[in-house]
Amino acid sequence: MDSYYPSPAPDLLTWVIADLHHQRSAELQQTLLDIHPQDIAALLEALPLEQRLQLWEITPTALHGEILPWIHDEARATIINRMAQSELAAAVSQLEGSDLATVLEELPPQTVEPLLESLDEDYRRRITQTLAFEEGSAGRLMSTELLSVRANVTLAVVTRWLRRRHTTLPPYSDTLMVTDADGHYCGTLTLASIITSPPETVVAEIMETHRESILPNLPEREVAGLFKRQTIAAVAVVDSDGRLLGRVTVDEVLSLIEEEVDEAWLKGTGLDEEADLFAPVWSSARRRGLWLGINLITVFMAAWVIGRFEQALDEIVALAVLMPVVASMGGIAGSQTLTLTIRAMALNQLASGNIRWLTMKELAVGAINGLLWAAVVALVAYLWFGNSGITLIIAISMLLNLLAAALSGVIVPLTLKRLHIDPALSGAVILTTVTDIVGFLTFLGLATLLLL
Amino acid sequence: MDSYYPSPAPDLLTWVIADLHHQRSAELQQTLLDIHPQDIAALLEALPLEQRLQLWEITPTALHGEILPWIHDEARATIINRMAQSELAAAVSQLEGSDLATVLEELPPQTVEPLLESLDEDYRRRITQTLAFEEGSAGRLMSTELLSVRANVTLAVVTRWLRRRHTTLPPYSDTLMVTDADGHYCGTLTLASIITSPPETVVAEIMETHRESILPNLPEREVAGLFKRQTIAAVAVVDSDGRLLGRVTVDEVLSLIEEEVDEAWLKGTGLDEEADLFAPVWSSARRRGLWLGINLITVFMAAWVIGRFEQALDEIVALAVLMPVVASMGGIAGSQTLTLTIRAMALNQLASGNIRWLTMKELAVGAINGLLWAAVVALVAYLWFGNSGITLIIAISMLLNLLAAALSGVIVPLTLKRLHIDPALSGAVILTTVTDIVGFLTFLGLATLLLL
Repeated sequence: MDSYYPSPAPDLLTWVIADLHHQRSAELQQTLLDIHPQDIAALLEALPLEQRLQLWEITPTALHGEILPWIHDEARATIINRMAQSELAAAVSQLEGSDLATVLEELPPQTVEPLLESLDEDYRRRITQTLAFEEGSAGRLMSTELLSVRANVTLAVVTRWLRRRHTTLPPYSDTLMVTDADGHYCGTLTLASIITSPPETVVAEIMETHRESILPNLPEREVAGLFKRQTIAAVAVVDSDGRLLGRVTVDEVLSLIEEEVDEAWLKGTGLDEEADLFAPVWSSARRRGLWLGINLITVFMAAWVIGRFEQALDEIVALAVLMPVVASMGGIAGSQTLTLTIRAMALNQLASGNIRWLTMKELAVGAINGLLWAAVVALVAYLWFGNSGITLIIAISMLLNLLAAALSGVIVPLTLKRLHIDPALSGAVILTTVTDIVGFLTFLGLATLLLL
Repeated sequence: MDSYYPSPAPDLLTWVIADLHHQRSAELQQTLLDIHPQDIAALLEALPLEQRLQLWEITPTALHGEILPWIHDEARATIINRMAQSELAAAVSQLEGSDLATVLEELPPQTVEPLLESLDEDYRRRITQTLAFEEGSAGRLMSTELLSVRANVTLAVVTRWLRRRHTTLPPYSDTLMVTDADGHYCGTLTLASIITSPPETVVAEIMETHRESILPNLPEREVAGLFKRQTIAAVAVVDSDGRLLGRVTVDEVLSLIEEEVDEAWLKGTGLDEEADLFAPVWSSARRRGLWLGINLITVFMAAWVIGRFEQALDEIVALAVLMPVVASMGGIAGSQTLTLTIRAMALNQLASGNIRWLTMKELAVGAINGLLWAAVVALVAYLWFGNSGITLIIAISMLLNLLAAALSGVIVPLTLKRLHIDPALSGAVILTTVTDIVGFLTFLGLATLLLL
């Protein structure tokens, strides 16, 4: 059964850094024993490499297995690389199901092989079974530590069996799974009904048969959706013949949605949810450099557009001063529409029937804000440069760019999705390229047409 | 007990729009009865106002209460505004705890008063109790529908009492709460232990006493943290004297983390997680216009900086072409550091002891990418304009701007937090203002110093 862990103190990290600095290992060990493995993982991630390894050395070995799955991939690799094969085997043998898969799939094959061989056979068989399921599937989240009873026995038999087990039940066991003689999933039996029904009752009479079961290849996203729609603590996983394989519990879904939070934060920055805060400088630079390179291409496209209007820029210097205003406002307005559209797509709220509606609405919003801010910008431009030609063209190009922004805010993510590209990843880059180019093109183009 | 709901079909929205269009009310009603209230809520949000109200009319009245809490505030208001007082009272009377609070707190006071009076007294008392707790606190998430037993009775008594209740237990009841004679919380009793222990056992002998309880004013963020660290399905809520008030169940925490996903998506765009996809054009325009206005101020600050260098721009037109490249690359690099820092702050991974480390690492990453992309940009600029002076100054200003970006990516969010401003909300605006200004200043400033 799980232990009691209070929330960590807010300045825990400060204390730990001080303790590490002053080599107070005994105090540190005591602190680590009192907090949750997840909080120890967070501490390890928050430390630069040298201190991280120092803290890991001090951490009681018995906790190693529980901590590893909570550390993000890249930071975990920095620790695993320094562990001896035997230490790793000891840590891994404390794990099960999705936790185990998380750790094992990051290890190089030459490490996994001897590791598996050093474990006992029954355990090895279960690991191999878990790893056989694809990453991101229900099979990977599944725990095989579950209690199932036969549909044709009486509650008296179930009760005797539970008493003989002596140990406590796994967490989230408000129900037992029910199978037939061949192991096919039939439904669930609540513990409450065992207590409240007469002992001679047969399980099949009182079990709930409407409870959904899932296949191990169900994507984890759908697993999460199931738990959001139903107030259940666990769901049965069955094979294609309906035989009970295991169950997924609600805590796995909590972890899944937490990862979604992380992804939502990092998307569109070229960062990755596994990025280590204290990754080696070179690997950080490489990862981010790639994203900067992609952006450089788009910026040079915008620069090329500006370059087409050298004559106008040469004659009217105010154009160079004001052109970023038009481009930037388009980028902001467009990213608002883009975000709203991507979010609606994620929630399955867009269909052919309402996309036209959404586009019209966004264009209307773009027109209102376009007119409003065009007026403000025109006023400022007039007061600054006193040139009515520039005042007129900046107003027109602001309006046009905000309309273009609204339109691309809807079209860009829909197009990307059709091309099977994640709009959350690259939508913003493409959108600002559009608004930059439309902004420079309309502003400098109109200036060339009307003012030269 | 909760019912069985399959996942909705991916093209459900398309069907619903078609059914609405062809006035197939009977088919629609059947569809709505088969899916989860949360999915109906998502459908309503995905429809423009007119169709939304049409679908609401068709929705069986018995479901109204269950659907309302799942709809986001703004979209819900569009529906509630059209409901008669009596309909609203009927819908509200199906709700409890956090669901009820969610709906009631959005109603105008003149609606709530008569609504409360139309409900029965016991129910009204419970509502008033829930609403007395602050929004965002454990008290609001709490359900008072819980089963508690006395510590000094035997399991035989507990069993008899459960049998007499006849109805099923509320969801997530793998444990019962235990209190003393005065209602003080003592611990939990697992249903499993009722089954496996002899009936003459006294509850106090086998209850688990290490189970944490929380106060109703605990912030919901901390409630979520508790569930992430412990494999529990529910936690007891007690008053300051330790008396049991109710419990918070894990499904509330699932909803909380889901809201976090939504916030993470929308932050930094000036949008709000309650924004309605099909909000009236005017209210959308107002909300977003404000954000555009804030950004306009920052863009004009950058334009003002450019304006200081009119002479340089007048003499060398290539400067106007290339200046967005320097500013934009700084913005991208800075937003990477900013995102990483804000995320680390959210995970409590920054303390005085490692901020200097992080800053040094980010500066090193900035230097590496600064040197790399400065070289690339310089090469392109040389091939384009063939001017070695411009080549030199764009390289220097790229490097300087990427270093400034790294530095402000760490400093801006830390400073905002110290000023009690949410860095996720405004960090990106401030950061790009810094990188724009530093970019234009170094590029045009160096050009003025070295080339004129």
